[in-house]
Amino acid sequence: MQRIQLTEDLSFSRLIHGLWRLDSWNQEKKKTLDLIKYAMEQGITTFDHADIYGGFTCEELFGQALSLEPSIREKMELVTKCGIVFEAPARPQHKSHHYNTSKKHIIESVENSLTNLKTDYIDVLLIHRPDPFMNPEEVAEAFRQLKNSGKVRHFGVSNFKHHQFTMLQSYLDEKLVTNQIELSAYQLENIEDGTLNLCLEKRMAPMAWSPLAGGALFKGTDEKSVRLRETLEKVKEEIEASSIDEVAYAWLLAHPAKIMPLIGSSQKERMARAVRSLEYHLTLDQWFEILQSSMGHDVP
Amino acid sequence: MQRIQLTEDLSFSRLIHGLWRLDSWNQEKKKTLDLIKYAMEQGITTFDHADIYGGFTCEELFGQALSLEPSIREKMELVTKCGIVFEAPARPQHKSHHYNTSKKHIIESVENSLTNLKTDYIDVLLIHRPDPFMNPEEVAEAFRQLKNSGKVRHFGVSNFKHHQFTMLQSYLDEKLVTNQIELSAYQLENIEDGTLNLCLEKRMAPMAWSPLAGGALFKGTDEKSVRLRETLEKVKEEIEASSIDEVAYAWLLAHPAKIMPLIGSSQKERMARAVRSLEYHLTLDQWFEILQSSMGHDVP
Amino acid sequence: MQRIQLTEDLSFSRLIHGLWRLDSWNQEKKKTLDLIKYAMEQGITTFDHADIYGGFTCEELFGQALSLEPSIREKMELVTKCGIVFEAPARPQHKSHHYNTSKKHIIESVENSLTNLKTDYIDVLLIHRPDPFMNPEEVAEAFRQLKNSGKVRHFGVSNFKHHQFTMLQSYLDEKLVTNQIELSAYQLENIEDGTLNLCLEKRMAPMAWSPLAGGALFKGTDEKSVRLRETLEKVKEEIEASSIDEVAYAWLLAHPAKIMPLIGSSQKERMARAVRSLEYHLTLDQWFEILQSSMGHDVP
Repeated sequence: MQRIQLTEDLSFSRLIHGLWRLDSWNQEKKKTLDLIKYAMEQGITTFDHADIYGGFTCEELFGQALSLEPSIREKMELVTKCGIVFEAPARPQHKSHHYNTSKKHIIESVENSLTNLKTDYIDVLLIHRPDPFMNPEEVAEAFRQLKNSGKVRHFGVSNFKHHQFTMLQSYLDEKLVTNQIELSAYQLENIEDGTLNLCLEKRMAPMAWSPLAGGALFKGTDEKSVRLRETLEKVKEEIEASSIDEVAYAWLLAHPAKIMPLIGSSQKERMARAVRSLEYHLTLDQWFEILQSSMGHDVP
Repeated sequence: MQRIQLTEDLSFSRLIHGLWRLDSWNQEKKKTLDLIKYAMEQGITTFDHADIYGGFTCEELFGQALSLEPSIREKMELVTKCGIVFEAPARPQHKSHHYNTSKKHIIESVENSLTNLKTDYIDVLLIHRPDPFMNPEEVAEAFRQLKNSGKVRHFGVSNFKHHQFTMLQSYLDEKLVTNQIELSAYQLENIEDGTLNLCLEKRMAPMAWSPLAGGALFKGTDEKSVRLRETLEKVKEEIEASSIDEVAYAWLLAHPAKIMPLIGSSQKERMARAVRSLEYHLTLDQWFEILQSSMGHDVP
Repeated sequence: MQRIQLTEDLSFSRLIHGLWRLDSWNQEKKKTLDLIKYAMEQGITTFDHADIYGGFTCEELFGQALSLEPSIREKMELVTKCGIVFEAPARPQHKSHHYNTSKKHIIESVENSLTNLKTDYIDVLLIHRPDPFMNPEEVAEAFRQLKNSGKVRHFGVSNFKHHQFTMLQSYLDEKLVTNQIELSAYQLENIEDGTLNLCLEKRMAPMAWSPLAGGALFKGTDEKSVRLRETLEKVKEEIEASSIDEVAYAWLLAHPAKIMPLIGSSQKERMARAVRSLEYHLTLDQWFEILQSSMGHDVP
């Protein structure tokens, strides 16, 4: 599978496995290990986590599976996130929902992630959300300390707009290596408001969450979903794909920004469809037909 | 006529003749040549085209006129654009409406423009619209090749917002020399959203399309048009202009950003009025009265 | 009181006394002097003016008080602003409401301010509003001349958004030292649109006007005011403050951007409450509870 070079010493697989629903799959750790190994056989070596997924439980479920065959750790890239706090049984000390990007919290969160994921290092740590109360000097100190200790190799952000990105970046020693943003044929906000252009300007490949719009492409009943689904079905026939999710992935993969979609499924067949989407080629006519169908009008 | 220095080796006339409706004028090429020469006598030496004008026909109509007296080519500046695709009899290969800023398309489009305009070089080539599917590396390669071959002297953009401009610029060898934007006393969007400030920050004089708001200033019946027309009439009396289009041009010309309005008329009298507008001086009171009349409220 | 270093040779008191309503206090100059001295005893040494306050009368009222004891001038920092024009008895030459950021106007305005404030120099001069007709070269020339003559030590802006700030800054010899913006628990616009992040990115502490939202926190009857007041009351109890204005100030002061709130009261007790707010510490839970109460929803 194609790989995207994020830095001199780090590359991601073009498709990334997202574990945000791992807890809901209710499966034995053997089955999770099996899924991880299946992904890796397909070339998907990058796995996306966050401390909060599953109410602060998904990282540990992954770590338990990983501990069954620790040798595969070196063959994968682990991404995780920090900065969101909310009440959950696994975090009894949390009193309310807010952000925390203090040095103390970032470092403690990474320590937890390392323990839960059963690993010595995180490949990329992301600040999960732009924090209106962020002290960028504290973030910079936390990153420096985590880098120096070898606990985190590189740093990035998630859901950052232009002003949040450039502000934080101006305090950091090293370049942020990615911005994980919501991006799909259905959800164009980050294209329209310039966030994707920021990624191109910074030579930074974005990760795309909800590349299938959380299922809206398949099941949405709003006008936009229906309209877009129709277009995806039409293009599916034209390119002889087997499902519209392949078209939706292909639409993201065709873009020059080197978008890395997150695949969040426990089903091998769905993962295989995502992998197949790498082989489809959309014409410009098709790419814009999908775009315009989502916008509800032609480009000017 | 005042000239605006875009680069060390290129200046535009302060007023620019726009040819986007040349096909609708239905006139002999001799008459078109006559109009071109009239413009040049007034000091309007810069002519604005796009491949798409008149359904991909206007460039050729201009070129036919120019071929009657090829020696004037050296005394004018030719601007044209590329990047928009739509179905038209003159382009049977086009299947749908979309953008195309691929290297191949840009270069082919320039070749067509050179043939149609009957010239060996374009003074400034503009990317017509910000393309959400733009591959800036391809644009940079196309620009480099066109520059090296002598087919295009300089490059610019049209309708670009801040994030689109800085992204593309970051990939280019040379500075973009202009941004052609919609700008008039009626249409303030590019003032309000910072696009005009971007031009000032980049020391780049903008070209203004629809400086008369496509006729809304004269004929619009919406509240804003009526209100603004009344103010323009009042100021017209005060400065002893002969028509409100002179006031509308003077309002743009007064601005420190060195705005270059496009004059898109086939009528010499209208062109002459635009030229006269260069001599009017608006007071600050008058400039803001027009602005505030357009906004519908005072500045804070 | 904590001081904020704006440049190597200039610091402001963390709290700033705002004089925009000085005329409405209808008090003897002795009483004004008394208030000034009271503020300074509390550590509030920075005083914020504008030419326009009180219809161009407040600066003079302050200057008259200052002239009773000229020696205190050296112990305070004076901020004033220019650039807004409107009709007022004190400015019979003004014909309409508009902005004027011409070199001539800026310099004349400073001369007036110096005369009215009875001082030889302004510590910081602010451009009061972003002027859509601004000629940044003229502003730069005015600043240079005022700096060289010793009449103004440093320069800043007020109510500038990102594009207005970076545009003007690009023409200036020296760094703008502050941006005075509207900011309160009630009015979050400058947090949400990135203006506060711009301040962090430029290492420039902002001044906050209307930190109590012009009284909306106390008396507003709209849903947002009521909701926010309830939360401020709750947090007031928790931190054992004596009034919600202390909580509202503490909320601003807790932010890492080193926000300097303007205190615009003639009442010593209110000033004292603002000073007390420096001692309160809000938890992250409390800070976000106030934020979310203002937004009307949780952070994502």
